Amino acid sequence: MQDPLQPQPLAELVAALRRLPGVGVKSARRMAYHLLQHDRPGAERLGQALQQALSQLRHCERCNTFTEEPVCALCTNPRRDPSQLCVVESPADQNMIEASHTYQGLYYVLMGRLAPLSGVGPDELHFGPLLERAADPALREVILATSFTAEGDVTAHYLAEALRSRGLVVTRLARGVPAGGELEYVDAGTIAWALAERRS
Amino acid sequence: MQDPLQPQPLAELVAALRRLPGVGVKSARRMAYHLLQHDRPGAERLGQALQQALSQLRHCERCNTFTEEPVCALCTNPRRDPSQLCVVESPADQNMIEASHTYQGLYYVLMGRLAPLSGVGPDELHFGPLLERAADPALREVILATSFTAEGDVTAHYLAEALRSRGLVVTRLARGVPAGGELEYVDAGTIAWALAERRS
Repeated sequence: MQDPLQPQPLAELVAALRRLPGVGVKSARRMAYHLLQHDRPGAERLGQALQQALSQLRHCERCNTFTEEPVCALCTNPRRDPSQLCVVESPADQNMIEASHTYQGLYYVLMGRLAPLSGVGPDELHFGPLLERAADPALREVILATSFTAEGDVTAHYLAEALRSRGLVVTRLARGVPAGGELEYVDAGTIAWALAERRS
Repeated sequence: MQDPLQPQPLAELVAALRRLPGVGVKSARRMAYHLLQHDRPGAERLGQALQQALSQLRHCERCNTFTEEPVCALCTNPRRDPSQLCVVESPADQNMIEASHTYQGLYYVLMGRLAPLSGVGPDELHFGPLLERAADPALREVILATSFTAEGDVTAHYLAEALRSRGLVVTRLARGVPAGGELEYVDAGTIAWALAERRS
């Protein structure tokens, strides 16, 4: 929908907002009108936050997550167990695992997952640094905590092959019925996994 | 969910993105990771677009929409009919009416609607300039094109009272079955309106 009424700076703001994931043209317009009409301080703040994040954040040299330092606080924490390395797709996934308070090892953050159909292969995901990282002599086990989606499965499968050939123990998160899950409302695929991987 | 792993510039970016309408903490994180990892040029562009929009856009002195000039291109177009004024809630609504190619008059953009429960009253919406605008001697008819929601109805009702007392013809968009609408899939409230306002 071309819009002859829209002045150029407004059109450009809408176009820039549309590049955010999950934002279509209607949402982008709503965001632009909201910022300009009702939240100009919010617009200023977002502009500054973008600049600051772009200039100050880099990737941790050890785990690849976003950090202000060459190596992030978690990687330099002497209380973390260097014999375990948990591979996650994103900092958000890492946060969820930390929130469970049950893991004391280190992490590697892929910042994505293999998506052959979208042209994301092992080279795009920078598996090289992960494999170097996995050469750490203190390391015993790599826990693959990628998503249980087709792409997450492919990623885990690929990494498992590469890491097992280096003599590491490679494990994956268990699949099954979620905590608090009532069987009636769990999908059949999950039930099938939970049955197949049942424990005594 | 407080996040000890998140460096400050990332936390600030997520907080700033959360102020966008319709964006919660999970979406804000996904946006931040996406921009930092996969679309740094997009992040630069958004930052610049925000700055440019904030510094260059103002409200049209006649119709209140966003413009780079004191008076917008539509208001200065001599081919628009000054006897009709269409009152809309937002530039997006104005765009939809222009897209119908059936209206040749002028506009007034409220940039909101009355929402007494959220503290948006006539003062917050700046009805004063609209009432001044409506004093134009060339003006004959005001078409209230606010939404058919409770808040849009309240806004239209309030404006109708104020404008009719100035001797203007005040009309509202027709309600009824949408173009291409199959009765089976139209809600009962719309059917009731279409029946009540049926035409010979």
